[in-house]
Amino acid sequence: MTDHIRYDDARGCLVLLDQRILPTREEYFDCTDTASTIYALQTMVVRGAPAIGVTAAYGCRLALDEVGDGPGWQERLQAKLAELAAARPTAVNLKWAVDLMTALWKDSGEVTPARLADIWLARAKELHAEDIEINKAMGRHGGALMRDGDTIMTHCNAGALATAGWGTALGVIRGALELGRKVRVIANETRPFLQGARLTAYELAKDGIDVTVACDNAVGLLMQRGMVQQVVVGADRVAANGDAANKIGTFTVAVMAKRFGVPFYVAAPLSTIDRNTPTGADIPIEDRTPDEVVFVGATRITPEGVPVYNFAFDVTPGDELIAGIITEKGVLRPPYAASIRRVFAEGAA
Amino acid sequence: MTDHIRYDDARGCLVLLDQRILPTREEYFDCTDTASTIYALQTMVVRGAPAIGVTAAYGCRLALDEVGDGPGWQERLQAKLAELAAARPTAVNLKWAVDLMTALWKDSGEVTPARLADIWLARAKELHAEDIEINKAMGRHGGALMRDGDTIMTHCNAGALATAGWGTALGVIRGALELGRKVRVIANETRPFLQGARLTAYELAKDGIDVTVACDNAVGLLMQRGMVQQVVVGADRVAANGDAANKIGTFTVAVMAKRFGVPFYVAAPLSTIDRNTPTGADIPIEDRTPDEVVFVGATRITPEGVPVYNFAFDVTPGDELIAGIITEKGVLRPPYAASIRRVFAEGAA
Repeated sequence: MTDHIRYDDARGCLVLLDQRILPTREEYFDCTDTASTIYALQTMVVRGAPAIGVTAAYGCRLALDEVGDGPGWQERLQAKLAELAAARPTAVNLKWAVDLMTALWKDSGEVTPARLADIWLARAKELHAEDIEINKAMGRHGGALMRDGDTIMTHCNAGALATAGWGTALGVIRGALELGRKVRVIANETRPFLQGARLTAYELAKDGIDVTVACDNAVGLLMQRGMVQQVVVGADRVAANGDAANKIGTFTVAVMAKRFGVPFYVAAPLSTIDRNTPTGADIPIEDRTPDEVVFVGATRITPEGVPVYNFAFDVTPGDELIAGIITEKGVLRPPYAASIRRVFAEGAA
Repeated sequence: MTDHIRYDDARGCLVLLDQRILPTREEYFDCTDTASTIYALQTMVVRGAPAIGVTAAYGCRLALDEVGDGPGWQERLQAKLAELAAARPTAVNLKWAVDLMTALWKDSGEVTPARLADIWLARAKELHAEDIEINKAMGRHGGALMRDGDTIMTHCNAGALATAGWGTALGVIRGALELGRKVRVIANETRPFLQGARLTAYELAKDGIDVTVACDNAVGLLMQRGMVQQVVVGADRVAANGDAANKIGTFTVAVMAKRFGVPFYVAAPLSTIDRNTPTGADIPIEDRTPDEVVFVGATRITPEGVPVYNFAFDVTPGDELIAGIITEKGVLRPPYAASIRRVFAEGAA
């Protein structure tokens, strides 16, 4: 599944599969400018750290159409990029992509907006293709950790839909299957946005992968009964010490996994590791609209006037609870401060 | 709130506030015979261990209307009572109430069905009234454990709606408020049936008690941030060693509470403690229809054809994770095998 993020060259717009209404209907959403790209990011037409990164890269290209080429276009562009980078606070891939495009611009000397548009579009398409290759490499490294017959629990959707395609956590599952290991999946439904029930179940079932949905509340019982052999999740940001922010509820899954001796893995490309964030305590946690909790479809589930918390992420302490961080460069092991430093040093060498 | 379970003497039927459609609308459901009572129990028109007990007591009375007074009415009645007692497997109050009515019958010698009807209806009304008194006693004992300014997390609905009125866990909260301690409540939404979002929020807001709803996934983050000072939940069955079955997800809340040093209390009347169940491993866990997970109102949240787990309860190990079991006779403390033995011995003395 790779056509959920697609740049339409003829129309000069970014076309996104609208993940808000899956699995009921497959509808597409056009991003034609910065505002519509930010809207798509904020309302979660598209979500998942790597997919957010790729979307933001195309979003930089779209911003160029709005700034003209008259005097001051650079300042106008800079302002648009800053707006785009601030669309969501937790996933570091958003800032990563905008920073990467900005660096490319700065390196291009005296470019015109038209020339920069070509440079950026080509780079966005490269990032898009690279993301799939990175996921496949993660899938090979992580897949080798899964054993034949394992049931793998995952939380949220860190799949094809959360990336340019293939997936991080679900890429590991696809990697295990490619190695001939028969694994099955328990998808936690992942309230409030229900990424597990709606998106993970949808994309795995579409690929013929054995998946069962369970309420988030069932995590303890399923592990207590020995029904889970591995946990693999994605991440929105990994701090320099290996603490990992991911969808709300992930931390609890990790604590329960530890209790029952179930290995808990985070699948995250290097672009999700933010060495500028020292620890999990430094990761900003997005506080989203209560309406995501209050309404499921047209059904209101809480009484009018009752307040609601809707924190979107939590942080899992790396060295204590994460058995391994699966990256495109291999599986990092605790202590993560050292293994993360090492993997980036190798990349730089 | 006590009119959600009401025996209508004029019409000879049991009238239940339909908890399936709260908080959207307040509608009532008539139980006129065993079949409609079992339907109400199984589909959760009424739920919550003590409320199930009171409903079953009235259900025994309704069964009498169906067996006539011709030869063999005793066998026919016995069969109806067995059906009723088997309506739901986990909450011991169902069996407790049917056993209690059966014992009353056996103690009544050669009664006619008409005479037994009077005896049973009077006893059911007594149980109904006693349940409220028991809850208030629990509220006094438990309320004294809460401190001024505490935020109390609760899971599912162990409130007025789960009992004859007042509540077990929510009775403790009402008890704390009666002692003049300003406490506030976080109601976990409690997927899949959403008893927290729908019922706990509804009855607390109706009483003007400060309540905020959060997704079950937020338990870890809320405790990590120090936003929870106490946890109080109900129980569907407490084993002789203090292990407590309660709504799915409770076990996870207890594990997280232990991690963050938050006291975790179970509020359960003695009728919920089953000395015939040695440990939590002996408590049957109900496996309910996937449709409760799949549909929220008219909205389907999983793709067609994807299987779903819907285990309704889990078991929290008593001695390890439960700080106290709040009963009408006081607060039991670990080791529970001893404190439970003692409280029943005192009752018998």
